[in-house]
Amino acid sequence: MSDFSTLDHLHMARALRLAERGRFTARPNPMVGCVIAHGDRVVGEGWHQRTGGPHAEVFALRQAGEEARGATAYVTLEPCAHHGRTPPCALALIEAGVARVVAAMRDPFPKVDGGGFVLLREAGIEVAEGLMAAQARELNRGFLSRVERGRPWLRVKLAASLDGRTAMADGTSKWITGDAARTDVQRWRARAGAILTGADTVLADDPQLTVRLADTEVMPPLRVVLDTRLRSLECARVREGGAPTLYLHDASVSPPDAADAEFACVPSQDGRLDLGAVLALLAERGINEVHTEAGATLSGALLAGGWVDELLLYQAPTLLGEHGRPLLGGLGIHDMAQQRRLRVVDQRQVGADLRLLLRV
Amino acid sequence: MSDFSTLDHLHMARALRLAERGRFTARPNPMVGCVIAHGDRVVGEGWHQRTGGPHAEVFALRQAGEEARGATAYVTLEPCAHHGRTPPCALALIEAGVARVVAAMRDPFPKVDGGGFVLLREAGIEVAEGLMAAQARELNRGFLSRVERGRPWLRVKLAASLDGRTAMADGTSKWITGDAARTDVQRWRARAGAILTGADTVLADDPQLTVRLADTEVMPPLRVVLDTRLRSLECARVREGGAPTLYLHDASVSPPDAADAEFACVPSQDGRLDLGAVLALLAERGINEVHTEAGATLSGALLAGGWVDELLLYQAPTLLGEHGRPLLGGLGIHDMAQQRRLRVVDQRQVGADLRLLLRV
Repeated sequence: MSDFSTLDHLHMARALRLAERGRFTARPNPMVGCVIAHGDRVVGEGWHQRTGGPHAEVFALRQAGEEARGATAYVTLEPCAHHGRTPPCALALIEAGVARVVAAMRDPFPKVDGGGFVLLREAGIEVAEGLMAAQARELNRGFLSRVERGRPWLRVKLAASLDGRTAMADGTSKWITGDAARTDVQRWRARAGAILTGADTVLADDPQLTVRLADTEVMPPLRVVLDTRLRSLECARVREGGAPTLYLHDASVSPPDAADAEFACVPSQDGRLDLGAVLALLAERGINEVHTEAGATLSGALLAGGWVDELLLYQAPTLLGEHGRPLLGGLGIHDMAQQRRLRVVDQRQVGADLRLLLRV
Repeated sequence: MSDFSTLDHLHMARALRLAERGRFTARPNPMVGCVIAHGDRVVGEGWHQRTGGPHAEVFALRQAGEEARGATAYVTLEPCAHHGRTPPCALALIEAGVARVVAAMRDPFPKVDGGGFVLLREAGIEVAEGLMAAQARELNRGFLSRVERGRPWLRVKLAASLDGRTAMADGTSKWITGDAARTDVQRWRARAGAILTGADTVLADDPQLTVRLADTEVMPPLRVVLDTRLRSLECARVREGGAPTLYLHDASVSPPDAADAEFACVPSQDGRLDLGAVLALLAERGINEVHTEAGATLSGALLAGGWVDELLLYQAPTLLGEHGRPLLGGLGIHDMAQQRRLRVVDQRQVGADLRLLLRV
């Protein structure tokens, strides 16, 4: 770990903010930001906008032009060393004559994984890594999960009353939370590669599960319906709205010949799909982050299985009473020792509602 | 409503903060703060420390001495006009020669109720009222509730998991929330005139319900046990610890001859005490604010009856599962139209837990 100056921190913080601009469009690639500076004078900035397009470093170098020579380049992720859809960024930095590269973290992607740093150092460039690494990992938790764990980062979104009820006993639940919370959910959907739901939710609510964000470019997330026996096909809205849809089912059924959706078979047991297999399949398809909007049963099964990374809980300041539907089902908790402790990562008010982000 | 300057606001804000210093000791009197100033120069400050002791104005006038002449006195509540345990503050202000009195609000207490302002104006003092009135009402919501509504301000404290469970199905619940939350609760107990609980809670937990706050002077709140048939007398801890205890029961039982507690009979129906009668009785005894720590049944009955003014909800970042005990019982909510909407007044993190203050 090198010593980093206040100025280093300043530029890296800026690079991280730039990176975040790619949150709705960069996937399956990681979000990356780059700042090129001489001391406190910034000469170039860039971020990775979309897969196949130029990397962050290329945008920043273009802006810097001749001023890149002798400058320091701050990157939120190790510059790539391989010829992918674009030439290696490490070479571009070398050719531009930068004197020093500060990277927040190594890129664990097997084709990079330190190779970018090696190229830079061999060219005589000073390389320092690890500046604001925690923030960089947080930014790309989805990409890192896929590359390092072979499964996407999994978020479960829930909306409930203060007494932990998601609906009346008969299932009525419309508008527990307010407009602001529902708009906020759109941004969480938008940053996910896939929106996961279950057949029961499709049958109950006939949801569309698309992203509706005005004036914002979003790559439509894949809608994934877990539907062991393909019971929910009659509900067509989840196949409409201009986003792709993938049904996952087991071997007991044959998928129909449908032009508006894709189908894939996944192992199952006792009529329930193997959730580990589901997530492995989604990772193979390049899904970094899964956003789950499902009922108590699927959400509970994901949590009980240890697949949940974060819980996004909207709490409406209301009481629905002890007959309301529970937040999560099937947790199988029978004494205090079995409780599921979480960690509050963020809490804020969204309109009249409260929003909690919790990590397992 | 007069026009108030920035300086007026500054001094009144200070007076409100001074008033708050009496929150653990002033009751049943209201909390009052006073600042005496010439322009931006403060010459005297005071607050009401305890019933029978000098009022805020007296402390401030003593400190100001001759400098009170021609000054402005800022008071959070109308100066008293009656001879109580101390002489009227309005006269003291007149004698000291203050030129102007700014009061946050009128004192609705029948023996004052505008009389203080009349005295001051008759003496030729300029009187302005209503500056930061909302904050002043918030400060003394207990006192105002007792005087204006004839019942105390009622707070229900609850601690639950994120899924709205207060305990396991078998009642186990120890340590859902952490140390910081439990210490925080002590301060809410300390500002209440009474801590209310039910026989079931006494039987289940044998709680002491005293205030344990190091290095803080607190008038011990009255412990009030709702125990229709005096079933919980075997649990003696609620009568120990140096605070008074009052059992409220119905006419079906005769109170024992006990030196360590007081007993009072209250009307009941179907074995449940009339909660309106309970609160009227507490108001008659000078209780401004009731802090409730009870189970789901009593808390739910208070809410269902419309007696609750605020809910103090500690949420531990944990999940207890759908078999856990519900937050509140007997709300009788069967469709969304019957939900109990609340308003979030304050939310913050207390240790690892979340604390919400909600108003009905």
